Amino acid sequence: MKLKTRILPFESAHYTVVLDQSVAKKLDVRPSDRVLVRFNGKTVVAIANIAKEFSHEHVGVYVNIAKALGISDGDEVEVEATSPPASLQAIRKKLQGLSLESDEIYQVVKDIVDGKLSELELAAFVTAVHFQGMTPSEIYSFTLSMVETGQRLRLKRKPILDKHSLGGVPGDKTSLLVVPIIASLGFTIPKTSSRAITSAAGTADRMEVLAPVNLSIDEIERIVEKTNACLVWGGALNLAPADDIIIRVEYPLGIDPFYIPSILAKKLAVGSTHVVLDVPTGRGTKVKTLEEAKRISQSFFEIARMFGMNLQAVATYAEEPIGHAIGPALEAREALIALRELRPGDLVDKAASLAGTLLEMVGVENGYETAMEALRTGKAEKKLREIIEAQGGDPDVTPEEIPLGDKTYTLYSEEDGFVYYIDNSLLANIGKIAGAPIDKGAGVYIHVKLGEKVRKGDPLLTVYSSSSAKLQAVERILEDSKPVLVGRTAGRRMLLERIQYQPPRQLVLER
Amino acid sequence: MKLKTRILPFESAHYTVVLDQSVAKKLDVRPSDRVLVRFNGKTVVAIANIAKEFSHEHVGVYVNIAKALGISDGDEVEVEATSPPASLQAIRKKLQGLSLESDEIYQVVKDIVDGKLSELELAAFVTAVHFQGMTPSEIYSFTLSMVETGQRLRLKRKPILDKHSLGGVPGDKTSLLVVPIIASLGFTIPKTSSRAITSAAGTADRMEVLAPVNLSIDEIERIVEKTNACLVWGGALNLAPADDIIIRVEYPLGIDPFYIPSILAKKLAVGSTHVVLDVPTGRGTKVKTLEEAKRISQSFFEIARMFGMNLQAVATYAEEPIGHAIGPALEAREALIALRELRPGDLVDKAASLAGTLLEMVGVENGYETAMEALRTGKAEKKLREIIEAQGGDPDVTPEEIPLGDKTYTLYSEEDGFVYYIDNSLLANIGKIAGAPIDKGAGVYIHVKLGEKVRKGDPLLTVYSSSSAKLQAVERILEDSKPVLVGRTAGRRMLLERIQYQPPRQLVLER
Repeated sequence: MKLKTRILPFESAHYTVVLDQSVAKKLDVRPSDRVLVRFNGKTVVAIANIAKEFSHEHVGVYVNIAKALGISDGDEVEVEATSPPASLQAIRKKLQGLSLESDEIYQVVKDIVDGKLSELELAAFVTAVHFQGMTPSEIYSFTLSMVETGQRLRLKRKPILDKHSLGGVPGDKTSLLVVPIIASLGFTIPKTSSRAITSAAGTADRMEVLAPVNLSIDEIERIVEKTNACLVWGGALNLAPADDIIIRVEYPLGIDPFYIPSILAKKLAVGSTHVVLDVPTGRGTKVKTLEEAKRISQSFFEIARMFGMNLQAVATYAEEPIGHAIGPALEAREALIALRELRPGDLVDKAASLAGTLLEMVGVENGYETAMEALRTGKAEKKLREIIEAQGGDPDVTPEEIPLGDKTYTLYSEEDGFVYYIDNSLLANIGKIAGAPIDKGAGVYIHVKLGEKVRKGDPLLTVYSSSSAKLQAVERILEDSKPVLVGRTAGRRMLLERIQYQPPRQLVLER
Repeated sequence: MKLKTRILPFESAHYTVVLDQSVAKKLDVRPSDRVLVRFNGKTVVAIANIAKEFSHEHVGVYVNIAKALGISDGDEVEVEATSPPASLQAIRKKLQGLSLESDEIYQVVKDIVDGKLSELELAAFVTAVHFQGMTPSEIYSFTLSMVETGQRLRLKRKPILDKHSLGGVPGDKTSLLVVPIIASLGFTIPKTSSRAITSAAGTADRMEVLAPVNLSIDEIERIVEKTNACLVWGGALNLAPADDIIIRVEYPLGIDPFYIPSILAKKLAVGSTHVVLDVPTGRGTKVKTLEEAKRISQSFFEIARMFGMNLQAVATYAEEPIGHAIGPALEAREALIALRELRPGDLVDKAASLAGTLLEMVGVENGYETAMEALRTGKAEKKLREIIEAQGGDPDVTPEEIPLGDKTYTLYSEEDGFVYYIDNSLLANIGKIAGAPIDKGAGVYIHVKLGEKVRKGDPLLTVYSSSSAKLQAVERILEDSKPVLVGRTAGRRMLLERIQYQPPRQLVLER
């Protein structure tokens, strides 16, 4: 059928055309069906979006289709129904409870990257894998396909070391220490990381306080050649791009069934040969118990081995934030202090443990001590400043000159006693409500650690923000909910919260 | 944030706004997040669609938002992030493997109808129910919520009889006989039905050959008052509208986890008190064995009972098409012939069996015989013609004057023998490729039934179409695939098809 085009003034995530329902009926096209759009000898396959009240003489095309076919507004194109992509058959197969072959998985991943699957179809696939799981060979194929459909970092070096954290513990700025420790000892560690998705700061947000992190593959290769390392945002590098598209679908659903391929593909794409996987383990994090940490690690071991990657998982204590600072600027400050003054102790110990594990994987003896020595001698700090400079930041930055939010609110202890409870997710939420990570200076500084003795009137935490309105929102939350609980051994309040029964609404069929 | 509106010239399925990625970042809004759009004291919640290359000063709004808020193109609106609907929490709960309370289910169904959930979220919910199933109390609540969120037919009559088929057998025009049989005996049967989704004809497509089927609730109530019955398309009546939205999501995925609420809600919405559920059982249909038919029926019994609905399930023979005709016009012809001449036998027997079951449910003795008598005396035919007239069709229509496709192709037997195999789904596909159901005169007439003796050169089937190109496509298919197989007992070919091994593509990680 010949239709005039009406260009819709933005790019959609995939090739989509808009058809009026009467036109769709004539074409025998239903919602989510595919159509061929032909213009000037060129063809694209697009997903049909069927609308009410659209023009009967037009097909709506988004900017990306117009670009691909060289269409100007009003040009006449040929539109006809066509069959769905092979990957949709594979998704239907998975929905029937069957496992997929490697070529089927490759087709799904490729079509995800090429924008050939709708969000609806992708959501069904993600949900199916959430319920069905994948076999090791499916996970292997999925990981491999993610790597093959993206960019790679091509460093002419070996071994290539790397670190990844499963996350979930607030204030985890460990990478800002581990990367320079490793690099200062002559090993290569091209660290790519993410921005915060549901937390108050990701490693990329923290590093961005010190230097630009949105660099190109070429720039990264140059920086790593020069400094042995980098600390950059992986999001724009097109490493395993299927992952970013899948995350967009997983985010509203609160599920994450592809975490193994997602993590391993990004590591394989930068060529990592030795990886330490940090599994923060504790109440407020994703992994609650040591048993769970061990179970998850086994899956990583199995798949990493299939790729010949040396992976060591470590469960780390995560019942409270790492160090004191939560939020990009506060955490960048704390990392700089830790590199110079070797405090706070938990942050330094965690960094030395992870770096030490990595060092022993490549044959260094006494990994932990070697890492501590790199901190004590100032080699690690010097290396971080080299990396900052190479990425375009100020190598002489001091912790004090990093700007924080100018509005603050401090919560004080109302009694003498010990800190016996810290609520990780509430702390992260407070940081976000204060404006982090977009407001770089926003965040929470927690003055105390679990088990610490406090006196009535001692500060427990200070919230920073550049917005009075946001700080007021934080104050309202702190009136109801306490992220830090203090009590005496005898008088400790064991009741955390009364859980309300929510009676189901009675439904009566009106007749 | 204040933004100027740019109205996008069509309705989207739900309230959606388009934001450029840089604007979305400032608002701290991610794909699928919700935003409040405020104009002139009115507010709607919309789903954020984050685009590249959209104007940084504008928010794109679809026609339905513009209408709801009274916006003209270029008007300035206030846009801010807001929290997702409660129904999304319920969907996440289901994704965690938990059952939902009745109020949570009501919220999901209401938000589906109100367009507050994205297709992505809906697809995840549908897939979760596909894998997790629902408890009887969940199914009950879902059904009830579907009824409550839609229109009802309000007939001041009791009992109200009804029939529904799980479908899957081609040529099933039984409703065109059952409805007039029941109505001719003084009982009320307001039959709403669907158009073909994946088949060559739905009951609404067949009836539309004889009379208009796209009527309003008021018209239907008048017609039923007058004739005891109707045979109309349910799609535009807004009966259980959640169902239509769910079907749009299920269709590309090839799954159908809501079939029980979907069917029962439509019956409850027209007030049905006595329902016969036809479960066509056989190789080419949805339900393959009698055991499966019994299992599915138990679920229907359980839920119908919770609503006080009297439901009787019947498994019917479905190894071959019902009668000879497949396609709207061919089937309408065959139904008219059956009402007058009581042939073909399988169609008449099936209609009398279903009608008889219904009659006995409301206390009539010898249901089957009573139904046959209504056919033999011509009462049923007279009643169908009354219904046709009441719906605006020609009551004097003869089978012969119903137009068929003027291009035909007939397949002949290449040998003497018996018909030992009929491929239902291939026949349905041929009907569709010939142009059915949109081309009303397109379809397949199958001259033979299973077990029938044929001689070489006897016609096996005739395909009708109004398009030579479509008929040629059918011919090409018939060269490779035979929907009707003929053989002698001795020389019967037991091999149906050689299944090809498809070797998996070898994936090698490029290093």
